[in-house]
Amino acid sequence: MKRALISVTNKDGVVDFAKGLVELGFEIVSTGGTMKVLQENGVSCIAIDDVTGFPEMLDGRVKTLHPMVHGGLLYRRDLPSHVETIKKHGIHPIDLVCVNLYEFEKALKAGKDLPDMIENIDIGGPSMIRSAAKNFKDVLIVTDPKDYDNVLDAIKNDTTDFDFRMNLAYKAFSMTGAYDAMISRYFADQVGDQFPDTLNLSLKKVEHLRYGENSQQAANKYEDSYVQKSLLDYEQLHGKEISFNNVNDLYGAVALVREFGNQIVTAAIKHSTPCGVAIGNTGYDSYMKAYEADPQSIFGGIVAVNYKIDKATAEQMHKIFLEIVAAPDFDDDALEILKKKKNLRILKLKNLDARGAKYDIKYLEGKVLVQELNTKMIDEMKVVTNVQPTKEQLTDMEFGMKVVKYVKSNAICIVKNGVTLAIGGGQTSRVWALENAIHNNPDKDFNGSVLASDAFFPFNDCVQVAADAGVQAIIQPGGSIRDQDSIDLCNEKNIPMVFSGYRHFRH
Amino acid sequence: MKRALISVTNKDGVVDFAKGLVELGFEIVSTGGTMKVLQENGVSCIAIDDVTGFPEMLDGRVKTLHPMVHGGLLYRRDLPSHVETIKKHGIHPIDLVCVNLYEFEKALKAGKDLPDMIENIDIGGPSMIRSAAKNFKDVLIVTDPKDYDNVLDAIKNDTTDFDFRMNLAYKAFSMTGAYDAMISRYFADQVGDQFPDTLNLSLKKVEHLRYGENSQQAANKYEDSYVQKSLLDYEQLHGKEISFNNVNDLYGAVALVREFGNQIVTAAIKHSTPCGVAIGNTGYDSYMKAYEADPQSIFGGIVAVNYKIDKATAEQMHKIFLEIVAAPDFDDDALEILKKKKNLRILKLKNLDARGAKYDIKYLEGKVLVQELNTKMIDEMKVVTNVQPTKEQLTDMEFGMKVVKYVKSNAICIVKNGVTLAIGGGQTSRVWALENAIHNNPDKDFNGSVLASDAFFPFNDCVQVAADAGVQAIIQPGGSIRDQDSIDLCNEKNIPMVFSGYRHFRH
Repeated sequence: MKRALISVTNKDGVVDFAKGLVELGFEIVSTGGTMKVLQENGVSCIAIDDVTGFPEMLDGRVKTLHPMVHGGLLYRRDLPSHVETIKKHGIHPIDLVCVNLYEFEKALKAGKDLPDMIENIDIGGPSMIRSAAKNFKDVLIVTDPKDYDNVLDAIKNDTTDFDFRMNLAYKAFSMTGAYDAMISRYFADQVGDQFPDTLNLSLKKVEHLRYGENSQQAANKYEDSYVQKSLLDYEQLHGKEISFNNVNDLYGAVALVREFGNQIVTAAIKHSTPCGVAIGNTGYDSYMKAYEADPQSIFGGIVAVNYKIDKATAEQMHKIFLEIVAAPDFDDDALEILKKKKNLRILKLKNLDARGAKYDIKYLEGKVLVQELNTKMIDEMKVVTNVQPTKEQLTDMEFGMKVVKYVKSNAICIVKNGVTLAIGGGQTSRVWALENAIHNNPDKDFNGSVLASDAFFPFNDCVQVAADAGVQAIIQPGGSIRDQDSIDLCNEKNIPMVFSGYRHFRH
Repeated sequence: MKRALISVTNKDGVVDFAKGLVELGFEIVSTGGTMKVLQENGVSCIAIDDVTGFPEMLDGRVKTLHPMVHGGLLYRRDLPSHVETIKKHGIHPIDLVCVNLYEFEKALKAGKDLPDMIENIDIGGPSMIRSAAKNFKDVLIVTDPKDYDNVLDAIKNDTTDFDFRMNLAYKAFSMTGAYDAMISRYFADQVGDQFPDTLNLSLKKVEHLRYGENSQQAANKYEDSYVQKSLLDYEQLHGKEISFNNVNDLYGAVALVREFGNQIVTAAIKHSTPCGVAIGNTGYDSYMKAYEADPQSIFGGIVAVNYKIDKATAEQMHKIFLEIVAAPDFDDDALEILKKKKNLRILKLKNLDARGAKYDIKYLEGKVLVQELNTKMIDEMKVVTNVQPTKEQLTDMEFGMKVVKYVKSNAICIVKNGVTLAIGGGQTSRVWALENAIHNNPDKDFNGSVLASDAFFPFNDCVQVAADAGVQAIIQPGGSIRDQDSIDLCNEKNIPMVFSGYRHFRH
């Protein structure tokens, strides 16, 4: 008679699975709570104590860690010496293990305290899973209730071949790996280790994507299981499935919007570069200014905002082709209008203020750069010129710095009254970024505008070009050995300049 | 008398550690090979069999999986009921566990076959580690030979407080998490699962970085333990420590160089954007052309090449300020010259043809985009105009496409005779990328040049601007609904145009 060992925390479907196994000629060994449920539902079980000759003890901390169990799992059926050993010690073979684990992740999300978290570290479960998975050639290891029917069918049809078994083992080790990844990250936080010697990331696949950055690249969207609240949490209310580039662009858009806190802001993004950003007195005001900042580039772009979208704003958005509209909320009539476009992805942002993820990670073919998120903005507003900026200029400086932080380096942003006039980025030379920003916007009036730069000026050429275009105030981090050249030229041109301290490279 | 259980695969330092424990009043329980080594070195041990009353069996597959061991690890010293249970069953407390694991990673790197890999999956070790680590309040769990001295000192000085113990437990779970991550990825490859439902990445910290992308961001460099050969494997021969942005830039540079196979090529990169790329008949020839392609932007940049650098080339490189020179090899006299610059990072690239990593990963605050690497280049060279390109133009088209693939989108590259003339990228509008490329290079002669675009032309404006500048051939992926407009204008201007099929967005 074949023997199955069943011991599960998640009891979903376990009664039917056990009944199915009994029908297929299995006898069931079980433990504590699982056995109770099975017996109440008419499945007769052998208690684990009767297998081990040892009682469950220490409030369930030790139940199955016994050679009568693990010998029955681990012995190789193809080795006569192993078979003999088993017989000699009266160890009964175990042919199937159905186990899932104490819910550490659930406890974590429920905010349990350390002693509770420790009780939720399963010991016996992973041991059985790993023993059975190691010996998958001879033992079926079932860790996911979703597999119960498949496994029953395969046993019935005698199709539990090597591949089938190996796939179950693969799933099992994926589960134990993820489980301990979660525990190690929890412990890292407990001991306050920002950059662990071993950083275990367990990523859960959440969405198949049609393709990646380009159609020749297969792709999927995952979630870091340990991150409980992400800036990019959203509910999709409408539209086509989200694409790889959508998600990437959305990140830039929403991160930019997050910088503005309570200020009403609209950010339009294209190719992960801001093309129009504006603050406003109302959502409508802010959207219209962001749109007019660059009515061409916004076409096919992404719009993210930090306000509830009303009907009037939705009507304006409806006029143009957008890939995504993302907002914390929508008026019903606004949603109705936006939904008229069948494909438009409408996303309700859930956690616009979230800082749940600790890391910014660049994965470069096996080498991995792990850094803190760039949460800083301005260290100190230090006026370095003789002429002082006006209050309005100071406000625009802060606005410009927030925007330029999200433009690819080298980056320059020219703004006025809380609206972007021109954005230049992705350049290998700083003055090119500025020249291109101006060149790309031939009809703009830059008189009275404010320039923000993501890094210092290596020469005074940017001051010259900016002054020629009509820029009347400048903010930049400072820190070049030639800072004085730029300061001197600003003084000469009567342009107030502020050093902000923090550089904001973004590559 | 305190009791320590020692069972290690890596025997480094274990004898001294055991002796130290004995001196501190511990008795030692041990297993198989470890016990043999300890006894041979004069450490008396209790055999694990004597603790469990069960023999080691099944070729060592079952040794320690027994309540006499795990009860001794897991019982809570602060609960009278637990203490009583232990006494009742004659279970001896275990106060310290020293375990490290079968070397699955080593076996993997040695290219062992599946049965061998399976034998290298440790079962008893992780179980003991996890039991001890769960009960870290009462049990010291030592998994790293580097900790032996610290642990002995702490016991001696009675400083094994809660924090100390928790840090050991943290390390233990990090190890078991990494171990099963490795196994699950091995199984994923065995069953051919490209995008696992659970993708466990175990990252090993290899280098502290001064800071991240900006100085306000702390950062470290990690390696994906599962990736055995990376394009970014190098030996640093000289110079300052590598920075976060160095690594990121280096990746773009080396990936670009990799595209060229046996062709001799030099790539200069700044802000992860190519600024000068050239193929040549010799390394020197190629370097000089890449340098002259943009003698300004290369300043403070990175140069990567796929040839052995000779003295003449090194002399040229020495003339300017570079952050990094990366090459597969260097002549001795070349190295001598380059080393004159104290800070210049000289990197010897080890695996310029490596494709060891399967994934390109974007980590966006807990949401994670995982895609295949973009290994494709051109699907089919399809001439869509009446006029046919010359052989030289076809060669430049392929060259241009290789370069533009590594420029941030929207990207345009103008090339001639295997040298970049102008590169424009990071733009929200395609024609801006082209206009900026031309604008940024006012002294260049574009007559007879070839234009490559990373994605299709949405309108025919790029053809017009290119033709006006003197461009005489165009390659682009094609695929716009307005392709015919661009084809018509090319025909009118007598410019051959090729559709290459694959888009190469890079954000």
